[in-house]
Amino acid sequence: MNKALGNALHLTLPEGLPFIDYEREFDFPVAEVFRAHAEPDLIVRWLGPRGYTMEVEHYDFRSGGTYRYLHTGPEGVPYSFSGVFHTVRENEFAIQTFEFGGYPDVVSIEFMTFTDLGGGRCKISGHSVYPSMEARDGMASSGMEQGMSEGYERLDELLAEGRS
Amino acid sequence: MNKALGNALHLTLPEGLPFIDYEREFDFPVAEVFRAHAEPDLIVRWLGPRGYTMEVEHYDFRSGGTYRYLHTGPEGVPYSFSGVFHTVRENEFAIQTFEFGGYPDVVSIEFMTFTDLGGGRCKISGHSVYPSMEARDGMASSGMEQGMSEGYERLDELLAEGRS
Repeated sequence: MNKALGNALHLTLPEGLPFIDYEREFDFPVAEVFRAHAEPDLIVRWLGPRGYTMEVEHYDFRSGGTYRYLHTGPEGVPYSFSGVFHTVRENEFAIQTFEFGGYPDVVSIEFMTFTDLGGGRCKISGHSVYPSMEARDGMASSGMEQGMSEGYERLDELLAEGRS
Repeated sequence: MNKALGNALHLTLPEGLPFIDYEREFDFPVAEVFRAHAEPDLIVRWLGPRGYTMEVEHYDFRSGGTYRYLHTGPEGVPYSFSGVFHTVRENEFAIQTFEFGGYPDVVSIEFMTFTDLGGGRCKISGHSVYPSMEARDGMASSGMEQGMSEGYERLDELLAEGRS
């Protein structure tokens, strides 16, 4: 097993506040991890749970850009996700809105900080803000943690491939 | 005094949750009130407190559009505001992000519902979601309520002008 796969996702649901916070370290440089979020050709190779395929309709990772993509699981049902990028600062920070097509108009806003840890390592810190406690709790019980966890493992694998 | 000015802004700060909720009725049809939010030439004539001038850098009120404008008060200091429109449905609903240039990266997401009340009247219901309690409380104590209240009175006056 690749050493990189040893980095765990730490996800927190603050009591009584409609937030989801998370941290994940990577044994790869911040520029590589950021680039894997920025380029649609790369993101389709890791975002989402194992066993899902991702199809990007559009994905314009810049301040003011928009995105829309589909995840299709083993059962063949496509799930759509869409939003706008409020802020994107290369290798540093992004703010985006996020809407799951299954819950139209229940839109969250997500803050993602990329931190260079030195020594070719980095960290992603996320803060997701939901429009109600119900929306936060629904997202938390949707399998999100496992999906994110698997997605970041796939990202480790993708970046490790780039080295071999 | 114009009858339309009798409609008060009702603003609520839910205890312990980073939200600001508000309602405001208008003695004007929903299409007129929505249009005053959609067209930059109109919005500069009412948005913001009395005594401020508004200058739009860009304002593209459609799903996926972006905006940026400046408010300048009597003391001559310009305040910038910017964001993206996640959703815009004509005469119905809008979701937008909102950032005050004085607090960069502290971005809220705002949900605004336009309801036809019949008889040529309508209501705006707003739900604003902040990334922390501190951000919500800071916004609430910034003079926001008076600024919104005066802005909606100016909107009443603008729409009344259109009739005379």
